[in-house]
Amino acid sequence: MGRVTARRPVLRINEHGTRTRPDTLAAEEPLEIRIDGRALSVTMRTPGHDVELAHGFLLTEGVIGDVEDLRSARYCDSPGPDGRNTYNVLDVQLAPGVQPPDTSVERNFYTTSSCGVCGKAALDSVKLSTRHSPAGDELRLSPEVLAELPDRLRAAQKVFDSTGGLHAAALFDSAGQLLVCREDVGRHNAVDKVLGWAVLQGRVPLAGTVLMVSGRASFELVQKAAMAGVPALAAVSAPSSLAAELAEEQGMTLVGFLRGSSMNVYTGAERITAGTAAAAG
Amino acid sequence: MGRVTARRPVLRINEHGTRTRPDTLAAEEPLEIRIDGRALSVTMRTPGHDVELAHGFLLTEGVIGDVEDLRSARYCDSPGPDGRNTYNVLDVQLAPGVQPPDTSVERNFYTTSSCGVCGKAALDSVKLSTRHSPAGDELRLSPEVLAELPDRLRAAQKVFDSTGGLHAAALFDSAGQLLVCREDVGRHNAVDKVLGWAVLQGRVPLAGTVLMVSGRASFELVQKAAMAGVPALAAVSAPSSLAAELAEEQGMTLVGFLRGSSMNVYTGAERITAGTAAAAG
Repeated sequence: MGRVTARRPVLRINEHGTRTRPDTLAAEEPLEIRIDGRALSVTMRTPGHDVELAHGFLLTEGVIGDVEDLRSARYCDSPGPDGRNTYNVLDVQLAPGVQPPDTSVERNFYTTSSCGVCGKAALDSVKLSTRHSPAGDELRLSPEVLAELPDRLRAAQKVFDSTGGLHAAALFDSAGQLLVCREDVGRHNAVDKVLGWAVLQGRVPLAGTVLMVSGRASFELVQKAAMAGVPALAAVSAPSSLAAELAEEQGMTLVGFLRGSSMNVYTGAERITAGTAAAAG
Repeated sequence: MGRVTARRPVLRINEHGTRTRPDTLAAEEPLEIRIDGRALSVTMRTPGHDVELAHGFLLTEGVIGDVEDLRSARYCDSPGPDGRNTYNVLDVQLAPGVQPPDTSVERNFYTTSSCGVCGKAALDSVKLSTRHSPAGDELRLSPEVLAELPDRLRAAQKVFDSTGGLHAAALFDSAGQLLVCREDVGRHNAVDKVLGWAVLQGRVPLAGTVLMVSGRASFELVQKAAMAGVPALAAVSAPSSLAAELAEEQGMTLVGFLRGSSMNVYTGAERITAGTAAAAG
């Protein structure tokens, strides 16, 4: 298994002067995911939890709906320069009847839509492919619980402490209890690892949970949450316009700029309790 | 042309209470890049500077080396739900003799390497495809100039001020003078727009410049800088292990955690002046 961190010397410069010392960096390595022996994708990721990553990726790409759709996931023998297995190639066998994805560029979402390449086509494609819509989920969240999440996410980030260089994603229940946290150099990978954990636990759709991410909320992250049936996504930073539109269409609660006791609720404010729902419009 | 920002109502919650007010979000829309009419890629980006984005993307993918390799770049007619052009499809015509890229998954870097899917294969692939190695570039940077860059990047971020939701990348000369700054919801897009600007200006290879990015330094960002011949990359946050390895192999100066007068120099410390070079190891 690859290493999660790596050490190398660094020249540190500050007002006290200049010195060379060892530093710890977050590891980044390619992972190739194969379906029945054929290359599906290569992503740069932090090694570890690769089986979860593959499950989450295939769930959020619409290939699998639950753990039964996947027969096996095994590392291939993929020798590195030293002849040892790099553990960077994972071969997935789908269950009988599960269609492998179309890997051509033309498969892209807009071919599913009546209009061209635009935000509406992107929203339509998620609508067509999701099996676990979060709409109607009866999750309720208090602002007090939400305000606790950034610190709890930060406390669960083990590798960040040594490197300062990783994105994180975590699932919490409605009381703010941590279910799982994963870190990765790629924000989409951290989310895929969390959602893949849920697939392997038989917990998809993820009713009654909130997904917290360390950075911004993009269209892609809302899409991933929607594909897993997560009813609420909270981010430390800003969402994009299309992220908010997708959250609204999917009936998801989207919280951004969650810092201290302050937060912005972009969509699904009816799930926020303590008298705030009345003002939600 | 699509909008760079979008307005929508938000429920703001803080210690003073709860109120609904309009908020400005960074726009995110799909862009399809076609080569001679055939889809090459779809990326979620902030609209604007799309021709630069295409030039930068094709440069850093190794398809073009300079502006002469590209005959034209034009928006296709791509009607949205309202029948109007979305300006989300850009068709690029390559100059005679320029090979279009192989779009299959199998094209991935590891097929160029003698070993399997690993960090070394990723490094080798950049070595094989770059035409503008930054090694040997005689750029010199003082810690004082570097310390100014984050504030200058921040000052050049026009859209961030209203949304708080965009990544930024900017090119500076050795005296810290801003050459160009671009913002995007995607960090790789911001860098592609900056490098595409340089292609269009006939400034590639980008000798004597430093590329500053608002977030972390990943393998992909170092790769993009290397493909454009940029001799120094500076980031506000941490680099990954593979980013540092690639910078070292490419002879690039890599600075991370650039905050105030403090910074970490991971590679290429010989370009840092003011007596610090002696301690560079």
